[in-house]
Amino acid sequence: MNAANIVSIENEESGTVEVDSMRKSVSVYKCGGDKGKYGKVEVKGKCNSVQVDNCTLLELYVDSVMSTVEVSNCKRVKIIMKPGARLNSVAIDKTDGCHIYMSKETQENTDFQVIAAKSSEMNLNFESADGEMYEKPLPEQFVYTLDLTGDQPAITSKVSDLYSS
Amino acid sequence: MNAANIVSIENEESGTVEVDSMRKSVSVYKCGGDKGKYGKVEVKGKCNSVQVDNCTLLELYVDSVMSTVEVSNCKRVKIIMKPGARLNSVAIDKTDGCHIYMSKETQENTDFQVIAAKSSEMNLNFESADGEMYEKPLPEQFVYTLDLTGDQPAITSKVSDLYSS
Repeated sequence: MNAANIVSIENEESGTVEVDSMRKSVSVYKCGGDKGKYGKVEVKGKCNSVQVDNCTLLELYVDSVMSTVEVSNCKRVKIIMKPGARLNSVAIDKTDGCHIYMSKETQENTDFQVIAAKSSEMNLNFESADGEMYEKPLPEQFVYTLDLTGDQPAITSKVSDLYSS
Repeated sequence: MNAANIVSIENEESGTVEVDSMRKSVSVYKCGGDKGKYGKVEVKGKCNSVQVDNCTLLELYVDSVMSTVEVSNCKRVKIIMKPGARLNSVAIDKTDGCHIYMSKETQENTDFQVIAAKSSEMNLNFESADGEMYEKPLPEQFVYTLDLTGDQPAITSKVSDLYSS
């Protein structure tokens, strides 16, 4: 990506990033609080994508994001969608603690998905139509079995029983 | 667990662990090779469980294990079941690179399962009845969606499209 299209914030506890074009991407690098206190970064304006890398104890507020919010190598981050924000996907990699607070518009977006690998303590927070708040964990442990009954051997993957309620 | 029931090997490139009772467990800690060359640890005899922790570049040969082979905080390990070895499960946590070589007896054990979290580059290696060798990756990336259509909101987890062949 053309560097001119990236708006960056680096090594800050808190701050605001303003985006003036939906073609721009936002990079949030090594931001966040310490001693149990969260830092806050706010992205103002619709953007193409957001990369959150190497951040600890960060609350990230976002407006609509066209492609993906990527969270990698982070610990204890909150992705908070502002009212009206529509997101299509959040990708989480090598991250411990990623709490996603969904806006009503993103809940209504049936294409919205979270893609995750090598991560733990992830959840989706949202409010149901009747006003009840939910916090749903995203499974991080899976069980694999080898299925030799078909024409070709196959691996079956299922969510660990840990998550059956 | 009673320490008298643990047989340990620590900080060795290679070695052999002999187990004289199925009630004993084996601890393999910080073992393995370097510079791309694998170390080899052999467990001789049936045991209750094997813990493989903090090992890099290790080939671990095992006989039957009653409960679980646990692989955690490792990089590039191979779990190689000796002929006749029957395993029930391998649990993989925070590990990059875990190749499991199945014995015929474990392939026939339909209860055999691999449980994994926060890990990458895992696969199962086995030989089919007609002698063909297989190497099947265990999915490490998952896609989550929120399903609001039922009585209660639910999270749906599926294997990433990366693994559809």
